[in-house]
Amino acid sequence: MNKNILIIPGDGIGQEVTTWGKQALETIAKKYDHTFNFDEAIMGHTAIEETGNPLPDETLAKAKTSDAILFGAIGHAKYDNDPSAKVRPEQGLLKIRKELGLYANLRPILLFDELLEASSLKPEILRGTDILFFRELTGDVYFGEKIRSEDNSFASDLMNYHRYEVERIARKAYEAARTRSKKLCSVDKANVLETSRLWRDVVQEIAREYPDVETEHMFIDNAAMQLVKNPKKFDVVLTANLFGDILTDEASQIAGSMGMLASASIGDGTGFFEPIHGSAHDIAGQNKANPLASILSAALMLDIAFGLQEEAKAVTQAVADTLKAGWRTGDIASAETPTTRILGTNEMGAKVLE
Amino acid sequence: MNKNILIIPGDGIGQEVTTWGKQALETIAKKYDHTFNFDEAIMGHTAIEETGNPLPDETLAKAKTSDAILFGAIGHAKYDNDPSAKVRPEQGLLKIRKELGLYANLRPILLFDELLEASSLKPEILRGTDILFFRELTGDVYFGEKIRSEDNSFASDLMNYHRYEVERIARKAYEAARTRSKKLCSVDKANVLETSRLWRDVVQEIAREYPDVETEHMFIDNAAMQLVKNPKKFDVVLTANLFGDILTDEASQIAGSMGMLASASIGDGTGFFEPIHGSAHDIAGQNKANPLASILSAALMLDIAFGLQEEAKAVTQAVADTLKAGWRTGDIASAETPTTRILGTNEMGAKVLE
Ligand SMILES: CC(C)[C@H](C(=O)O)[C@@H](O)C(=O)O
Ligand SMILES: CC(C)[C@H](C(=O)O)[C@@H](O)C(=O)O
Repeated sequence: MNKNILIIPGDGIGQEVTTWGKQALETIAKKYDHTFNFDEAIMGHTAIEETGNPLPDETLAKAKTSDAILFGAIGHAKYDNDPSAKVRPEQGLLKIRKELGLYANLRPILLFDELLEASSLKPEILRGTDILFFRELTGDVYFGEKIRSEDNSFASDLMNYHRYEVERIARKAYEAARTRSKKLCSVDKANVLETSRLWRDVVQEIAREYPDVETEHMFIDNAAMQLVKNPKKFDVVLTANLFGDILTDEASQIAGSMGMLASASIGDGTGFFEPIHGSAHDIAGQNKANPLASILSAALMLDIAFGLQEEAKAVTQAVADTLKAGWRTGDIASAETPTTRILGTNEMGAKVLE
Repeated sequence: MNKNILIIPGDGIGQEVTTWGKQALETIAKKYDHTFNFDEAIMGHTAIEETGNPLPDETLAKAKTSDAILFGAIGHAKYDNDPSAKVRPEQGLLKIRKELGLYANLRPILLFDELLEASSLKPEILRGTDILFFRELTGDVYFGEKIRSEDNSFASDLMNYHRYEVERIARKAYEAARTRSKKLCSVDKANVLETSRLWRDVVQEIAREYPDVETEHMFIDNAAMQLVKNPKKFDVVLTANLFGDILTDEASQIAGSMGMLASASIGDGTGFFEPIHGSAHDIAGQNKANPLASILSAALMLDIAFGLQEEAKAVTQAVADTLKAGWRTGDIASAETPTTRILGTNEMGAKVLE
């Protein structure tokens, strides 16, 4: 197989971890005799510093013509604490999602047995949990009109959905539910939001096309609670952009750490694969970040973008084996982990490649 | 002290638990020689069935002229599964919040040592947690304009805030932070939402009036994660209506169960006290609901609406003693609870009053 892969490390620890996702892909190419051609591009704070634009035209052009994208992370505290900044790193990420039509964000909550103890949740609550989130990614209050009154006394964001936007992601989630345990939970706030009532209406309609899948509707407040109380009850979870952002970060604690979770954004254009963690500037450049989410993002790329299931499994297995051998980064170490088993980003990355 | 208290049981288990909150108030009145005059009114599904209106004029009139309100719960599955219903129970609750100007919803996450084991979180993660949420309650996407296109192809809700709305709740939260450990965390999504950027702007401004309080700003996705990972790091949490709805339900798992959490809504008009749990029609009328949140709501009323700190403490202590004696309702029982210690709503309520 011959593929062109674009690497966008982005900001903060994105730079450090993406190296290891890339090396995982190189190792697979060698072992399974594929040709992966790599190119690199800038985005976010890094791109603002160099060009003034969080998503330079050149990056977008490369993104559109490559076969898959491996992305790192985005963001910088500098903008967060300046509520009036006009140009922000996140605009780059939101724009590339929109431009590539990446309306479906898949976030599998993969639980490695070895990390049961690393979570703040009790092992007996966690054991057996296996959730696949479908988060809508190009609509909702993220992309609606934003207003700030001239005198700064008022601000608004339009939360909104079109029927077709809900339909297409609902279909993807139902298709996935069919290949799993045939259970789908749609999360909304239909007791308050008109957008959610449309959402529920559409999901109920699509549900009729999949009579073999059992559908449940849950309010977001209840879902945020149930996810901590009894995560095992969820299988495929379908939700809107904002609710998905919140729930998937929360769910990262099921997997022990944000540093473990990979995501795939798919839709009309080039598939986009990234860890769900942020740029974590507080630990950037210190060889402390967990590279596993980037490596697992590479596995998702092999599986979803290229249909290379065997290769994807090999990567996931290498991660599992490394954990089984007792190696940990700081974020997934528990009180019982011997300090000699706690590795930096680079040492952990190298262990997995072995 | 002579006070007029309005009881609004509302829907589902609201009916059963509110009896016990009321009886706690009666017991206190007798013991401390106060005169509490009770009146009752309908709201929600119950009111729709009787009058077609989720908040009848008579209820609103009584609410405006009483000294405090003890409320139960609202909602019914009938409306939830009908996305096109025009009249809904929740409209009653939203309208009374707005009409009484109840812009600040206080949700203390009170952790009883006896319930450490009832949570899905590890006891060592929980121990020492003490959080007070300030959720804005009369603005945000809850009250912005709602649109549904005639052909049902589009829906929207306007998320919005005025500067003064953020100012007044921020001040209340900072005042409370001063009397606690002088730490305040404001939660928003300022990297994406204009509303959140205004929110952060205002909070930064108010923070300058309280230089003795340490302020932190956190994104909602991160907060949803940190609340599970390390709840102890939070003290006063200040946030918008929608984010507060989600975070406080999630945080209920810290207290072991939704059945334990009380809330106070205050602002311009009559104070409104209610459990944070919902109407739970699945267990309604079965003598299964936990009455403690209603009893603790009565304690909040004594404290916040009437300034009766000693009386409030007596109620909270009675709840603590009952738990210490080993009594539990089903929702807060753990695997180790002997079945002979598991009580129904009425038996639990009676134990506390003893
Ligand atoms: C960085 C931010 C804009 C982004 C989002 O909110 O979508 C991030 O939190 C994510 O989940 O990918
Ligand atoms: C019933 C519903 C409208 C309400 C809300 O979302 O505010 C409830 O969840 C709450 O938290 O009081």
